[in-house]
Amino acid sequence: MLQLYFSPMACSLASRIALMEAGIEARYHPVHLQTKQVVDDGSDFLGVSPKGAVPVLVLENGERLTESAAVLQYIADLKPQAGLAPAFGNPDRYRLQEWLSFVGAEIHKAFLFPTFWYKDDASLAKPRARIAQTLSMPAAHLTDREFLVGDSFTVADAHLTWALLLLRPAGIDVAQWPSLSAYLARMQARPAVRDAIATEMAVRKTMAASPA
Amino acid sequence: MLQLYFSPMACSLASRIALMEAGIEARYHPVHLQTKQVVDDGSDFLGVSPKGAVPVLVLENGERLTESAAVLQYIADLKPQAGLAPAFGNPDRYRLQEWLSFVGAEIHKAFLFPTFWYKDDASLAKPRARIAQTLSMPAAHLTDREFLVGDSFTVADAHLTWALLLLRPAGIDVAQWPSLSAYLARMQARPAVRDAIATEMAVRKTMAASPA
Repeated sequence: MLQLYFSPMACSLASRIALMEAGIEARYHPVHLQTKQVVDDGSDFLGVSPKGAVPVLVLENGERLTESAAVLQYIADLKPQAGLAPAFGNPDRYRLQEWLSFVGAEIHKAFLFPTFWYKDDASLAKPRARIAQTLSMPAAHLTDREFLVGDSFTVADAHLTWALLLLRPAGIDVAQWPSLSAYLARMQARPAVRDAIATEMAVRKTMAASPA
Repeated sequence: MLQLYFSPMACSLASRIALMEAGIEARYHPVHLQTKQVVDDGSDFLGVSPKGAVPVLVLENGERLTESAAVLQYIADLKPQAGLAPAFGNPDRYRLQEWLSFVGAEIHKAFLFPTFWYKDDASLAKPRARIAQTLSMPAAHLTDREFLVGDSFTVADAHLTWALLLLRPAGIDVAQWPSLSAYLARMQARPAVRDAIATEMAVRKTMAASPA
């Protein structure tokens, strides 16, 4: 069975959403990212992945795959009938990769990451100055589209949904972009997305009650 | 014919290396990233791509593809016999995507981007504190490997080669990691890599002589 190392509401949420949308069973291991401990048994998460970051997907053969863009495409390709990624050979596959890169680099690494890890205003001034222009890209794209790529839900939507959910605690009100706000509401209405979020919020509550 | 919008020695260098390694002809358009002007005719680069970032690959059908991870895979798949990416269906394809994401997010967006765009030390303290741990990942991986993925040059190597080249002007001496230093020397000895760099250095000199 696949195993996913995750931290509640971190970017690994997108991988959980993908697994649940595809109906793929997996074992989930929560991780304390600050202390790099696996919650199950207190073991060293750096022993699972020296990067010390989530998601880590443990494949059936024991290999470990990291980086959301790779993990999400791997999950999508495990169950092509779920339609979570355009098939290889379909030009839309490159659009999927384009959005995965944009969410991972421009929204996550250039804004959300410094916002949650750096505590001084000086470090945060530049990322904050840039986020509105960044968000105007998906906002324009989604004005007349229901999903990021093609006509159905893909792992790019799982990735963007996670990023949009994190914008509020990062101090950004998505309501400034009505198309993003409507999109997020549509995505959150999906049973798999709703269940994935509810599960991780519950795990987060448990972890907060007994911090590592 | 494909067209590539680039800025000399920016991350679009990886796309040029990929095109040259594959022997694919293309028209190249330099861009002033600060002023968002296309050098050819002084036109507005935001009209080419509202993101205002390179690379932008104009496909044969006129569509524009952005984000290195997507552009590099597109180029690789145009000429499978060049072996610039493992075929779809080969598990190594996900390793390629993993490295493209890592270079794009962790080295580029989390370190090189703030280093070149932010001028105050406060904004740079955190990225600088993190880069050694980041680089220890490819350094360990390349200790006993010639290339990032499999046994031959792929677009992931084009991407990492670019990132390593930029570390010196960003104040990081790659010689701290002998495996990275040796890898960079091997990559720079490849004719396509050498020619791509020489071409962009020449364009940069011309642009510096007549700044937009």
